[in-house]
Amino acid sequence: MPESLAPNIPPPAPLPLRTTPAVETPASGRSRVIIETVSPQVDAGRFPIKRTVGERVRVEADAFVDGHDKISVAIRHRPAGGAAPWREAEMAPLVNDRWAGEFEIHTPGWQEFAVIAWVDHFATWRYDLQKRLAAGQDIQIDLRIGADLVTDAADECDGEVAASLRASARLLRSDSTAEATEIAISQSLQLLMRQHGPRRFVSESVPLRIWVDRVRARFSAWYELFPRSATSQPNHHGTLADVERRLQYISQMGFDVLYLPPIHPIGRAFRKGRNNTATAEPGDTGSPWAIGGPEGGHDAIHPDLGTIDDFDQLILSANHLGIEIAMDLAFQCSPDHPYVKNHPQWFKHRPDGSIQYAENPPKKYQDIYPFDFECDDWQSLWNELLRVTLHWVEHGVRIFRVDNPHTKPFPFWEWLISQVKQREPDVLFLAEAFTRPKVMYRLAKLGFTQSYTYFAWRNEPWAIRQYYTELTTPPVVDFFRPNAWPNTPDILTDYLQTDARAAYIVRAVLAATLCANFGIYGPVFELMDGRAVRPGSEEYLDSEKYQIRKWDLNQPNSLADLLSRLNRIRKSNPALQQDRGLTFHRSDNQTVVVYSKTQGDSVILVAVNTDPYHTQWANLNLDLAAMGIDPGEPFQAHDLLTEARYRWQGYHATVGLDPGSTPVHVFAIRRRSRSEADFEYFL
Amino acid sequence: MPESLAPNIPPPAPLPLRTTPAVETPASGRSRVIIETVSPQVDAGRFPIKRTVGERVRVEADAFVDGHDKISVAIRHRPAGGAAPWREAEMAPLVNDRWAGEFEIHTPGWQEFAVIAWVDHFATWRYDLQKRLAAGQDIQIDLRIGADLVTDAADECDGEVAASLRASARLLRSDSTAEATEIAISQSLQLLMRQHGPRRFVSESVPLRIWVDRVRARFSAWYELFPRSATSQPNHHGTLADVERRLQYISQMGFDVLYLPPIHPIGRAFRKGRNNTATAEPGDTGSPWAIGGPEGGHDAIHPDLGTIDDFDQLILSANHLGIEIAMDLAFQCSPDHPYVKNHPQWFKHRPDGSIQYAENPPKKYQDIYPFDFECDDWQSLWNELLRVTLHWVEHGVRIFRVDNPHTKPFPFWEWLISQVKQREPDVLFLAEAFTRPKVMYRLAKLGFTQSYTYFAWRNEPWAIRQYYTELTTPPVVDFFRPNAWPNTPDILTDYLQTDARAAYIVRAVLAATLCANFGIYGPVFELMDGRAVRPGSEEYLDSEKYQIRKWDLNQPNSLADLLSRLNRIRKSNPALQQDRGLTFHRSDNQTVVVYSKTQGDSVILVAVNTDPYHTQWANLNLDLAAMGIDPGEPFQAHDLLTEARYRWQGYHATVGLDPGSTPVHVFAIRRRSRSEADFEYFL
Repeated sequence: MPESLAPNIPPPAPLPLRTTPAVETPASGRSRVIIETVSPQVDAGRFPIKRTVGERVRVEADAFVDGHDKISVAIRHRPAGGAAPWREAEMAPLVNDRWAGEFEIHTPGWQEFAVIAWVDHFATWRYDLQKRLAAGQDIQIDLRIGADLVTDAADECDGEVAASLRASARLLRSDSTAEATEIAISQSLQLLMRQHGPRRFVSESVPLRIWVDRVRARFSAWYELFPRSATSQPNHHGTLADVERRLQYISQMGFDVLYLPPIHPIGRAFRKGRNNTATAEPGDTGSPWAIGGPEGGHDAIHPDLGTIDDFDQLILSANHLGIEIAMDLAFQCSPDHPYVKNHPQWFKHRPDGSIQYAENPPKKYQDIYPFDFECDDWQSLWNELLRVTLHWVEHGVRIFRVDNPHTKPFPFWEWLISQVKQREPDVLFLAEAFTRPKVMYRLAKLGFTQSYTYFAWRNEPWAIRQYYTELTTPPVVDFFRPNAWPNTPDILTDYLQTDARAAYIVRAVLAATLCANFGIYGPVFELMDGRAVRPGSEEYLDSEKYQIRKWDLNQPNSLADLLSRLNRIRKSNPALQQDRGLTFHRSDNQTVVVYSKTQGDSVILVAVNTDPYHTQWANLNLDLAAMGIDPGEPFQAHDLLTEARYRWQGYHATVGLDPGSTPVHVFAIRRRSRSEADFEYFL
Repeated sequence: MPESLAPNIPPPAPLPLRTTPAVETPASGRSRVIIETVSPQVDAGRFPIKRTVGERVRVEADAFVDGHDKISVAIRHRPAGGAAPWREAEMAPLVNDRWAGEFEIHTPGWQEFAVIAWVDHFATWRYDLQKRLAAGQDIQIDLRIGADLVTDAADECDGEVAASLRASARLLRSDSTAEATEIAISQSLQLLMRQHGPRRFVSESVPLRIWVDRVRARFSAWYELFPRSATSQPNHHGTLADVERRLQYISQMGFDVLYLPPIHPIGRAFRKGRNNTATAEPGDTGSPWAIGGPEGGHDAIHPDLGTIDDFDQLILSANHLGIEIAMDLAFQCSPDHPYVKNHPQWFKHRPDGSIQYAENPPKKYQDIYPFDFECDDWQSLWNELLRVTLHWVEHGVRIFRVDNPHTKPFPFWEWLISQVKQREPDVLFLAEAFTRPKVMYRLAKLGFTQSYTYFAWRNEPWAIRQYYTELTTPPVVDFFRPNAWPNTPDILTDYLQTDARAAYIVRAVLAATLCANFGIYGPVFELMDGRAVRPGSEEYLDSEKYQIRKWDLNQPNSLADLLSRLNRIRKSNPALQQDRGLTFHRSDNQTVVVYSKTQGDSVILVAVNTDPYHTQWANLNLDLAAMGIDPGEPFQAHDLLTEARYRWQGYHATVGLDPGSTPVHVFAIRRRSRSEADFEYFL
């Protein structure tokens, strides 16, 4: 087995307790403090929690000791790997033996943390002394006990600290009880002992890990297009150069990730025709997901799209505009893929000698050969797929959209993603798995950065509320980053099979504001082409999956301006740049969904009429506490789409949402305290 | 460090996957099935779940694989230690990728179990074949694929199974498609392949442990008395022989555990007087918890109580009546304890050279020296306390009531209990920790068999409902066994400081029916002596903790008969012999609490008026489903205390509970289906 290929990623070995100055080697029989139920954690530490650079990690734990002694509790954290020094963040008690603390993370990659705790004999002594003083007891011997504690601490310190501790110990032994008492209960001595007092028999929790991504993992706006349709020239197969020319259009709408379906050579055998017909006519271009032909496989570029130099140029131009190119990783082959000839052992063979094509009986997909991940030569298969991935990483790709990851083994993905991130921690992976919830969650746990969701089918307010509450609270929010798409080339929902502009506005606003990552498949979305191939189907008519389409981007009713505005609102409001902080508010109209997102002073309140055909009125009962608003103070609701401003006060508000004009409100909520001048000006 | 003394009990090392016939050594890269969220478990397997001999263990797990393949899932279990062969129980799918199965445990001690799962290629093939047949597809090649799968299985079997599989494979290759199809979808071949088909690339969950106790751990009735008060002879210090004479009385009330406060020599120095006065008068007997005098320490018997031979005789006589003697383990010393002279290093010393007595400032307990578990000689201290415990085990003690375990280190208890159970798995430990919830739960997790609870202070129906719901559902029910006591020598609650007989009946019935373990401290309880030492105190006046009391057991208003009846009801109704199966029912009177317990056909419904002074009526809304009752069928409610029988039907019932006559109902609920004759007779 090559050195790079370990067949599975075991959870890291438990970290031994590191000795830092003033921490003795623990003898566990005397490590009396118990630490339990540390949060956040995913599957008892089997998987990391996920955060991005600059976020704060709030840690909680139960910690307690036998008897009445006082304890000190802290978080230890550092970049994983063992070389960096531990940093420490103090934890403070909440209620019921629960403690909390937090720290900020600055470096992408693996971080490790644990909760540590120890009996604080000085704090115990000081607390007891105060009770003795209050009861008027004699404290002569107690002062001597305290002096001994402080002297012990001094013996383990150097320099000024030791000198200062020794001075305190002398005062505690003073003949003047008043003087000794004063130093005994002084804040300064308490602080000194907290920082420099000996820590004996330290307990440490199970070590936990954090995977820290760059910020785009948390906050991104995706646009998908088919490169071969990226031109309006008649009779022309769009090229990567055409995509480059379209970057300005995408940038103006505010998207920062451009995802391209596979750009590799396409197979001939069993090629699908237009609208997914079984046989292709001459000139039919086939599905880009039938990867591989005589021109090459997963590391080649379709000759009609251009060359690797064109691709490198596209990456450069995109990056110049702040856009990243996301590449499709679809690990399957057309019958014409070079692997079929060169590595037949990677495929399953039928008794008649043919290679097993993809099936979901009774359906047959004869243009696709899946890999046999149970084959004896699985290790070389894994290595080749890693090589292909790294090939594109070397060409500057930092985001992959992975096609159907749930049809390849979970251990494979855990290994591949870890191998890539080990080399380039800024590479992101989006899981395209529209399948059962536990399967989707497992993919997120094992390393996928973001995941497609059921968003497209959550149209009712109750369903939105239920689903997004699950996605934005622990444990899910700690490992799963939803990326909401109103449509994809495979998903034209019933809700969008309409010419009602409001339907598209509603879905765009929900996608862009419920969670911090969203995307659309265009230009079909902004041009609102809602024609299905047949009634009851979610497939587009004349789908770009099987043919080239030409689009008139200048159509006057295009949603491009709305998308621009939405993306500007997202970029200027931190509340919309994270998945946490989502609260649903009560509405007496079951077709109107109302929610807020809060991040510090940034508060956004969204009201959406999910009925795209009729005006709906709703009386709202606002959760003011969730928005940090005092019920006794007026506040401003500033509609960032229409620029209308309202002065509200208290829990009750009424909205009227007309699909013909304003089917949604996206309010910035401004409290008096935040920006007094701006607030007063408009009231 | 002596060999017997490991300073901590680490969780057992992960169990390697054992190969059993037809299971290949797993190559984890091809072990595609994922197993998650196995239940029951306690703190991710750090601690065992608890069960008793004869119980069934229901296991659930999430299990799923990439793609569309069918999987098989099973539980593997065996006595821990590695020598016994694995037994297997099949798991069946529920919904949403969750699987369930169960098995019964027969042996006390450690058991280990895990969930295993693998891709079932034959089941996948059979399922697909049926879909192909339904679609009318050609299945010639599929039949050959199936024949290959069956031949592969045959190659790994011997004898008749191999022959049978080979015969099936031949039929699958038959020229007659009809014949081949018939065998392909036959139940018999499916069963054969399920049992003998190869299991490749098996996945295994994290291994989990069960601690299996004997039945009394789950179901027991405790009676506590002070041996020195166990006689009515005037001017006589009760003896172990007096206790022996009282066994018949205890047995007639139906108790099966007799718990004795410490029977060791009592210290003289700082001995407490009657009613906990600071100085003892001549003749005062002191507190039995001030252990140790010139006559000996924790392994000695107070000379006034008798000899070790008397103790052995008491154990024998008790066992003869089905009663076990529970001994007190109070690990603390009087200043006169031999340890103080012989092992001064086990105690904390003050700067003036004196030994540190127990304190909770400003309170001082100068008659008690606690051990210093942080002392350098902690290992010999641990070993000595283990020796003392085993000394009593050798004298036949199988139940210990541990005094204030929360004031000694948790690692010590985990080690001590494990050391004792390793030698004698039938030894039980009751934790007397009335402290914060997480501390109490930790003690239960680390090995205590049963635990005292907050029961004494849960008098309101809402509080009873909340607390007992927590105690009888996972995760708590899997590691914490509540033992409910209406009173103890330290706890005379405000509720019982009354001469209202109903108050005592209410508390006895609640204790005896809410959970399966309960106890009383008598004879003060059955004689209803509710006098507190002073208003606002929970201490008894003339407490037996500090003096000898004489009791007239023949008082006409004694509750002994009620307790007899309650214990008989408990013994004949399995529903009351376990903590699971508790359901609270709705009552429109907030002073009346109503709950049922169900175990198979055994159903008990209890209604309690918690107001001991006034009659209360309540309209009930019964959860019939929880009692297995069809709303359309009549059922019988048979009051086991009064022998009254009611015919009820539907959700609604009314009870009137008069403190003067019937403050409670304890109904056996009989469904028509269960005992037709008995049911009809009374309707």
